[in-house]
Amino acid sequence: MQNTQIHLVSRPGSEGPGLENFDIVQVPLRPIEDGEILLSTEYLSLDPYMRARMYEGVNYAESAQLGAPMIGSTVARVLESRNADFREGDFVESWHGWQSHHISSGDGLRKIDASIAPVSTALGVLGMPGHTGYGGMLRHGRPQAGETVVVSAASGTVGGVAAQIARIKGARVVGIAGGPEKCAFLTDTLRLDSAVDHRAPDFAAKLVAACPDGVDVYFDNVGGDVFAAVLPLMRAGGRIPVCGTIAVNRDGAPQIGEDRMNWVLSRVLVRQLTIAGFIYPQFFDMAEAFRADMSAWIASGELAYREDIVNGLENAPQAFLGLFEGRNFGKLLVRP
Amino acid sequence: MQNTQIHLVSRPGSEGPGLENFDIVQVPLRPIEDGEILLSTEYLSLDPYMRARMYEGVNYAESAQLGAPMIGSTVARVLESRNADFREGDFVESWHGWQSHHISSGDGLRKIDASIAPVSTALGVLGMPGHTGYGGMLRHGRPQAGETVVVSAASGTVGGVAAQIARIKGARVVGIAGGPEKCAFLTDTLRLDSAVDHRAPDFAAKLVAACPDGVDVYFDNVGGDVFAAVLPLMRAGGRIPVCGTIAVNRDGAPQIGEDRMNWVLSRVLVRQLTIAGFIYPQFFDMAEAFRADMSAWIASGELAYREDIVNGLENAPQAFLGLFEGRNFGKLLVRP
Repeated sequence: MQNTQIHLVSRPGSEGPGLENFDIVQVPLRPIEDGEILLSTEYLSLDPYMRARMYEGVNYAESAQLGAPMIGSTVARVLESRNADFREGDFVESWHGWQSHHISSGDGLRKIDASIAPVSTALGVLGMPGHTGYGGMLRHGRPQAGETVVVSAASGTVGGVAAQIARIKGARVVGIAGGPEKCAFLTDTLRLDSAVDHRAPDFAAKLVAACPDGVDVYFDNVGGDVFAAVLPLMRAGGRIPVCGTIAVNRDGAPQIGEDRMNWVLSRVLVRQLTIAGFIYPQFFDMAEAFRADMSAWIASGELAYREDIVNGLENAPQAFLGLFEGRNFGKLLVRP
Repeated sequence: MQNTQIHLVSRPGSEGPGLENFDIVQVPLRPIEDGEILLSTEYLSLDPYMRARMYEGVNYAESAQLGAPMIGSTVARVLESRNADFREGDFVESWHGWQSHHISSGDGLRKIDASIAPVSTALGVLGMPGHTGYGGMLRHGRPQAGETVVVSAASGTVGGVAAQIARIKGARVVGIAGGPEKCAFLTDTLRLDSAVDHRAPDFAAKLVAACPDGVDVYFDNVGGDVFAAVLPLMRAGGRIPVCGTIAVNRDGAPQIGEDRMNWVLSRVLVRQLTIAGFIYPQFFDMAEAFRADMSAWIASGELAYREDIVNGLENAPQAFLGLFEGRNFGKLLVRP
């Protein structure tokens, strides 16, 4: 029996990640021993944070290793078990990266209850991305009824969860996404009050028109020019949770142009803004409330989500690179 | 009897404020009527916030009027009273701007207890600047024992108060100021752990050396290159209270160069930083604690301050302009 793996074989150069950084490798699977289980990957999650892990000297987590499967979270099914804690057919969340199979001792696996929602949601709305959007919006955004909340990359999982929670809390929510199809999804499926296409030539003017009272909370997933378009609209006391900088080159190295650093600081001061960066582990203490709230909102239909499933592990590198061009539409998953 | 006034006669152009925006005017003082008091200005406060008020369309407060005394806070003495609430010789805090005398109905005046500290401190450590440093450091900086706190413009009143409060709370405090004399004041008089001269050619390297464990709190009074030098040193979970942008041109208009906006956002995300802008009224609810704490710290000698007193109202415009070049050393006051 063969295990198909996608290895990281080189680190990105100044142009950023490319297909050449990955290689597909077949390795034989040995039989499992006592205490072990054999896992089959049902879904591999592809997420923006993986880009930073491709480099050496990552700031807040370990770099991915060269010559080994690229890192990542998966939903897997137990194919065979010699461990009393797991039975054939169990679904688990496993951190075994870009490969079709994995032999595990069972340590660190989290069992998934397939009766609550499709198991794939453990990587999306009910997993790390959903938890990030939940914690970021509630703890740092703190939306109040009647306030205006803007969310960028709102058609993604993190943004979609953050935006819908703001709606549930009674805010007026404006989503930003790329292209008319995603914008229609924001208003029709996520039921946001308004959607603005950041690719439209008159994006800034449309954003102003969509926010006649200004903006109280901007949940930022992208940085760059979208951030710069929202910043002047921020009202006094506004909050800007910074969740991602997907539009920014990986190391944030200075680009030549108008230096907007002091302009940002001036707006922060004049409008008494709070800009707060965060990563997922900050919200571990909210895990119980997260699961209870999200399960209820999904069950009642108050919170919708969308998945973008790519078939074939060999397509993972191409699909991953598309994340940074907004080519996915919904939570990006690979089904090996 | 004559009243000497400094009028704002024109608004600054693109070069910023200059002496040509001010004019000195003598007006006769009428006799006071029943219910009124005649005030003599003992001290006029000169503060950075006044620059923004010289322009039209100020964001968070009213613009100063043309052809009227420039706005500002004063400590005044009652020369003559026909109001039962005030006696000759009383000291009051009054918002009557750049003039030697003022006739008041008594409304909005705050009596100053001259037994606690010199009355001039009502404009400095015990007034708005002290309250700003107190609230900004305690509410937004939240310094913990053993943390490293950096304060820019630390020889000024706001910065000096913020830095000493961090020291009192047990933090290791590094002050930034311009020139060796001010740096000596930071370590010798304010008893900070270290001082770094932002005018030194190797400023960035000296700052790194002064913060071997990185920085937990950066209390920013200046923005610009000093902000950019501290930002890479911020530790995970760090706080950046933004109190002023004295090094930035008034409207924060983009400057050509390396665009550091996305770099700032990347650091905010990777280090999970919180950048919080604030203005003084945010801390009105802390007024009682502020007066109690500060009076005690001043009485016990734990908190020091310095005043820079300029004699002659006619010298106010020149002294005010010097604020933006760091020419003052301590709280800048004019004694008409």
